[in-house]
Amino acid sequence: MTQLIESAKRLVSESIIAPKGFSAAGFHCGLKHKKKDIGMIFSEVPASVAGVFTTNAIKAAPLVLTKNTVYANEKMQAIIINSGNANACTGEQGIKDAKQMQVLAAAKLGIDENLVGVASTGVIGERMKMDKVEAGIAALQLGGKLENAIDFAQSILTTDTVMKNTAYSLEIDGKEVIIAGVAKGSGMIEPNMATMLGFITTDANIEQSTLQSLLKETTDITFNAITVDGDTSTNDTVLVLANGLANNQTLDEQHPQWSTFVEIFQLVSRDLAKLIAKDGEGATKLIEVTVEGGATDAEALKIAKTVVGSPLVKTAVFGCDANWGRVICAIGYSGCSIDPTNIQISIGQTMVVDKGEPLQFDEAVLTAYLKNHEVKIYANLFQGDGYGQAWGCDLTYDYVQINATYRS
Amino acid sequence: MTQLIESAKRLVSESIIAPKGFSAAGFHCGLKHKKKDIGMIFSEVPASVAGVFTTNAIKAAPLVLTKNTVYANEKMQAIIINSGNANACTGEQGIKDAKQMQVLAAAKLGIDENLVGVASTGVIGERMKMDKVEAGIAALQLGGKLENAIDFAQSILTTDTVMKNTAYSLEIDGKEVIIAGVAKGSGMIEPNMATMLGFITTDANIEQSTLQSLLKETTDITFNAITVDGDTSTNDTVLVLANGLANNQTLDEQHPQWSTFVEIFQLVSRDLAKLIAKDGEGATKLIEVTVEGGATDAEALKIAKTVVGSPLVKTAVFGCDANWGRVICAIGYSGCSIDPTNIQISIGQTMVVDKGEPLQFDEAVLTAYLKNHEVKIYANLFQGDGYGQAWGCDLTYDYVQINATYRS
Repeated sequence: MTQLIESAKRLVSESIIAPKGFSAAGFHCGLKHKKKDIGMIFSEVPASVAGVFTTNAIKAAPLVLTKNTVYANEKMQAIIINSGNANACTGEQGIKDAKQMQVLAAAKLGIDENLVGVASTGVIGERMKMDKVEAGIAALQLGGKLENAIDFAQSILTTDTVMKNTAYSLEIDGKEVIIAGVAKGSGMIEPNMATMLGFITTDANIEQSTLQSLLKETTDITFNAITVDGDTSTNDTVLVLANGLANNQTLDEQHPQWSTFVEIFQLVSRDLAKLIAKDGEGATKLIEVTVEGGATDAEALKIAKTVVGSPLVKTAVFGCDANWGRVICAIGYSGCSIDPTNIQISIGQTMVVDKGEPLQFDEAVLTAYLKNHEVKIYANLFQGDGYGQAWGCDLTYDYVQINATYRS
Repeated sequence: MTQLIESAKRLVSESIIAPKGFSAAGFHCGLKHKKKDIGMIFSEVPASVAGVFTTNAIKAAPLVLTKNTVYANEKMQAIIINSGNANACTGEQGIKDAKQMQVLAAAKLGIDENLVGVASTGVIGERMKMDKVEAGIAALQLGGKLENAIDFAQSILTTDTVMKNTAYSLEIDGKEVIIAGVAKGSGMIEPNMATMLGFITTDANIEQSTLQSLLKETTDITFNAITVDGDTSTNDTVLVLANGLANNQTLDEQHPQWSTFVEIFQLVSRDLAKLIAKDGEGATKLIEVTVEGGATDAEALKIAKTVVGSPLVKTAVFGCDANWGRVICAIGYSGCSIDPTNIQISIGQTMVVDKGEPLQFDEAVLTAYLKNHEVKIYANLFQGDGYGQAWGCDLTYDYVQINATYRS
């Protein structure tokens, strides 16, 4: 899956406005101290929309509004996003405020309010400062240049340290199709969505129902396969807008190039997921866990997530300690079917466990490997053909520091 | 439950040898650098034994041996324990080594080897240094004094910073009955057992099957209601020895004072569980979460565990940050039935959320409260009569430090 298919290429100027007909904006309106905190994505024409949302029973007001909008209308033309305030646990007023953001954005763009999605991220339980939001929406200047896309990518960040962008170009029916994505992390990141917002734009022509199924399946093996700290947030949202301006034949499972489109769509999602994991709060390293030989794909994925989510594995990676005992321990408590006497574990290129027992290995080689910014752990369980991959990050002093002092 | 029943009293000299007929020993044999690392508990007469063991599919060799011993024999007279090496993932040799510890202890005591339990805790995947263990067992000097109990309590510790002892005296059938407990934590602590060893001794006369049921039920609401970091270890074991030397009428559910015995037995277990949580790796504070109004007791307990296990709640408590948003968020992702618009949350005496929305409160008062070494969080969900309590600790720089450098 890491080898790119021949007809696709990664775009150097990775940006959400790379597909035809999209523009973006980002601005500082005062919800955060200094950084940009309000942003907008806009498509020249209404786009097919698909969405996945948090599984948390406590759902933020803008998420509820946007979910309803997606299901009711199946088209979306603009998304308005703020950072600095999650607008969660804010009661009736919160719902009114989210609606007001939708109305203000629609009025500014001269489009139907049902074509506008709303997303928020930030502190829970504080009322939105709507005067600042209103001024912010008024001040947004949409544009189709890289700088506009950067303004937007910055405007959705909270404790993230870097922007998260990716984009690929491929050919469908002889037409260039572009799929681009932008996301924010970076705490409360756990399977079944997280404090993450992800936005994918494409100029592909694709039916809404097909897009929704594709997004759901893709989310399970990408955004839901990352974990930073096990906390699932109230605001997690991924939205895809497909505006059809590439003029390809409508994509569905019968289309001869369907698998190509799926592969690149998954790649965009996986890129964003890995960028989020790598930029987990306080993280210094991306950890990738690959499990083969699971009883099923679902079990392999569950085991991979369990290992990458173990605080003891995460601290060991931070400390460059080849403590494979914590890996096998996490495999053991994953709740999946395993044979303790037939487990193989490698860290990087070094096999450390075979048949459930330790092998001799050069500790210095492994310690050196663990100093890399990307650490790969492999396990084979010899239970079946199940395959799964999950991503996370190390657990560091900075994670504690960031989260002990977040509000203050 | 915190008010002690009239006929019981907490013993000032809390020690595992407080019940009649028990002696103990602890010694440094060289599995750890300097600290005591081998210990023994002995009863003058064979005792009814009950045990609960890790749910991890990877089980350490001594645990498998002891579990089999408990189920096969229903009596136990001695337990030999080492710290510094978990004897887990050590294959056939590990099983032989655990068996050899059993044989050596039995020979020293002149009892049947089937009356000896074995437990180990420490690093996973390293072979036992059996020469040191053998010399250590030979050197152990059993005694019935407080200093012997202290030697033992110290010998089972790993990254624990304090011993964990408790003991109560009560009257059954006009006879004094004592129940005492000792435990070690303190990383890999999570529901369904942890890297924890717990040993409870009592001179009560009680049937083995009754004791086993009682231990199982008690474990669910005490040892399994604590979490430090979500990792469930390969070695978790709680053993209870009841030697009957108090000469009370055999205890079972028909006994008129059964509920009194249960209450104190649970108290001993809860004391140990809370001591483990409070001494979680790097912890500065015990966090107690009490949930009322759950749909069932099981759901209330699950919610309490989810909140107390949230890294974001744990770091907020460390940082004395009254970030109730993280508490309600964790309630939301617990997977239990809740009504987001009818949740009440208090931190200490201060109600911070009612009907799912924030209340005005004096932040300075709450910040001051959060500086205490015990922080209590209450939630009412108004879904039913379900009640649950769980314990954990804050997540600190020291947790990361301890676990990033554990083996090295």
